[in-house]
Amino acid sequence: LCVRDAYHDELAAITDQLVEMTRLVGQAVSLATQALLTSDLALAQGVIEGDDSVDLLRENVERRTVDLIARQQPVAGDLRALTTGLRITSDLERSGDLAVHVAKLARRRFPDCAVPDELQATIREMGAVAAEIVSKAGDVVASRDATRAAELDADDDVMDDLHRTLLLTMLAPEWPHGVDTAIDLALAGRYYERFADHAVAVARQVVFLVTGEAAMRI
Amino acid sequence: LCVRDAYHDELAAITDQLVEMTRLVGQAVSLATQALLTSDLALAQGVIEGDDSVDLLRENVERRTVDLIARQQPVAGDLRALTTGLRITSDLERSGDLAVHVAKLARRRFPDCAVPDELQATIREMGAVAAEIVSKAGDVVASRDATRAAELDADDDVMDDLHRTLLLTMLAPEWPHGVDTAIDLALAGRYYERFADHAVAVARQVVFLVTGEAAMRI
Repeated sequence: LCVRDAYHDELAAITDQLVEMTRLVGQAVSLATQALLTSDLALAQGVIEGDDSVDLLRENVERRTVDLIARQQPVAGDLRALTTGLRITSDLERSGDLAVHVAKLARRRFPDCAVPDELQATIREMGAVAAEIVSKAGDVVASRDATRAAELDADDDVMDDLHRTLLLTMLAPEWPHGVDTAIDLALAGRYYERFADHAVAVARQVVFLVTGEAAMRI
Repeated sequence: LCVRDAYHDELAAITDQLVEMTRLVGQAVSLATQALLTSDLALAQGVIEGDDSVDLLRENVERRTVDLIARQQPVAGDLRALTTGLRITSDLERSGDLAVHVAKLARRRFPDCAVPDELQATIREMGAVAAEIVSKAGDVVASRDATRAAELDADDDVMDDLHRTLLLTMLAPEWPHGVDTAIDLALAGRYYERFADHAVAVARQVVFLVTGEAAMRI
């Protein structure tokens, strides 16, 4: 019994670290978006440097998970929880990288702002949805509540609509900001979209873990 | 002894699967590039559907690895080989996704070709370097020859130069192909660059495993 308790304590600690990762990458994407919108170099730099914490957390989760598998020889269900954790930590590390890419875009354009006035609202909204969706993914990881995972699909649809708005604005014949701005914003759009995809993937891993069924929409 | 032999047989089988993944994603990026250059819808479709094989291989590698950890309780060095394999399989699955993104770009523009004449050579070269680099990564995985990993850095520099050429061509004031083509090709450029990054990451994991030291250039 004692061994099993230690085991579940360790599993809970790993889950806490995964939730902490969702918090960190959510904060990173919010700050990176602010840096992009306001052309704030110091803020961008902070996001870029802060990504080390996310990478360290991933390494820590990996090491603890593998140690736990090796020491405890968990059976099917527990083993699946642990491998799911490994996939989640990989998705979240990637989300952190994408927030860094947004921050690097801000840094590369400094002191100019990469986002023209007519797209400020769209990019601000993409950043807000990205932060919201990864926060919900954290809730799903913490609660293992598969029913909440459906909310993320709705948020992801909002993100896709925003992405479409962004592209259509740039593809309009009257787009006055040139190819360079269009390229930067197309990349930014992709970073936000991918960020949301990884958050949705995190929630789906939990659904798969809890229900044993792959989520319908892949 | 017998158990250890079974263990190393299984480790070798996992390594073979990782090498097979490098072969599949190398083939995928070659075919996707051809589809993009020649606007070949059937070829693009084949790459998109073929990615299932890569995903299945990843799942298989994950399951076998975790089973092996749980059953054999490997010690430090062996354990590190197995966790390295998990990271490699994740990088290769992502490379497969990037080849699919290139193929989807070809499909989306069909029957038009996404690549204007003056950039055909650059994109062809990016596809060739991508295939070459992941093939070398496969050699490094198979041989565990850390000295060969340095070659990949040189290839990655070539990829970066090609990416720069691509962007500079589109940013020239006389660029005649509009914002839509520039956006598509900026995304394609990013897919190839990321593909190369993942292949380099695969080789670096092996270097780290063999030498115990992180490669200098991250």
